[in-house]
Amino acid sequence: MKVLLGISNRHVHLTEEDYKTLFGDEPLGVVKELVQPGQFSSDKKVTIKTEKRAFDGVRLLGPLRSYTQVEVSKTDSFGLGIDPPIRNSGDLENAAVVTIVGPKGEVTKPCCIIANRHLHINPQQRQELGLVGVDKVSCIIPGEKATRFDNVWIKESEDYTLELHLDTDDGNGSLAKTGDEVEIIVQ
Amino acid sequence: MKVLLGISNRHVHLTEEDYKTLFGDEPLGVVKELVQPGQFSSDKKVTIKTEKRAFDGVRLLGPLRSYTQVEVSKTDSFGLGIDPPIRNSGDLENAAVVTIVGPKGEVTKPCCIIANRHLHINPQQRQELGLVGVDKVSCIIPGEKATRFDNVWIKESEDYTLELHLDTDDGNGSLAKTGDEVEIIVQ
Repeated sequence: MKVLLGISNRHVHLTEEDYKTLFGDEPLGVVKELVQPGQFSSDKKVTIKTEKRAFDGVRLLGPLRSYTQVEVSKTDSFGLGIDPPIRNSGDLENAAVVTIVGPKGEVTKPCCIIANRHLHINPQQRQELGLVGVDKVSCIIPGEKATRFDNVWIKESEDYTLELHLDTDDGNGSLAKTGDEVEIIVQ
Repeated sequence: MKVLLGISNRHVHLTEEDYKTLFGDEPLGVVKELVQPGQFSSDKKVTIKTEKRAFDGVRLLGPLRSYTQVEVSKTDSFGLGIDPPIRNSGDLENAAVVTIVGPKGEVTKPCCIIANRHLHINPQQRQELGLVGVDKVSCIIPGEKATRFDNVWIKESEDYTLELHLDTDDGNGSLAKTGDEVEIIVQ
């Protein structure tokens, strides 16, 4: 079966408290709605900083969440000189420490992960696609650098719609792009 | 069967003429022998430059060759703002234009590619491993970001020894590292 692909560049999620520390009373604006319903690319950017290096212009995704999380690629992590764990979103066990800098302040906390490959799906779609009881799938990318990505975790929520997320390392290595329709198979 | 893996960071090969333009009469020294017999990491670094960005400290590999070639990852190419083709080493058809800067001068030419995944092998090893007549293999990386890389081109020469080369996008996406022993299968 084919699903829509989205490639995630490094980005940040913030709690309301951390947002206020970084941006004060500035309202959080929407630049672009994302494929996942209710999620958006915001009008705010931050700097992600470690002792080794800083990345400017890292996008804050909205809405605000119950946890602050920085998602980077393995390539980014070498640049930053940190070793973040591979995690599902929201699981910050042993997350790497980074500093997030905004115009009004900064926060330093263990919040940086490399996200697992994952497939957003809602319960209806999971039923229709025969993926009930399946935890992980593989994703097939054709082309000059054809690749099969395993361990794509299924993330189900009523709020989701069918979309597969890879990070920029996987996307660039396989030459896959946001908007591609890619084949998934049960592992 | 298992083979040794090497992850190639961005690097440069130079002709003798281009070497002289960049480094004048400085001798080319060896910092470290590579796995491929006769190949070495040299004591020289260059800057790779486009209108958009420059990467400093890019390693020159030796010995000098009959062609000048810059090998980058897709991630690097976005940073440089260029669109290099996926090529086997030495095939510079439609290569992207970059400027290579050394202490004594610079050269600007269409020499930048993204290297195909490839397996170095000598004729004896190819025979022993049953790969005579096989052009491409796949490589299996286990782990949290388990991946199967297809279209790994077999490059045979008497001068080679068995080693599989991936670029940093593929290596970082799959968490594979130089020195890993990885499984290959015939596609």
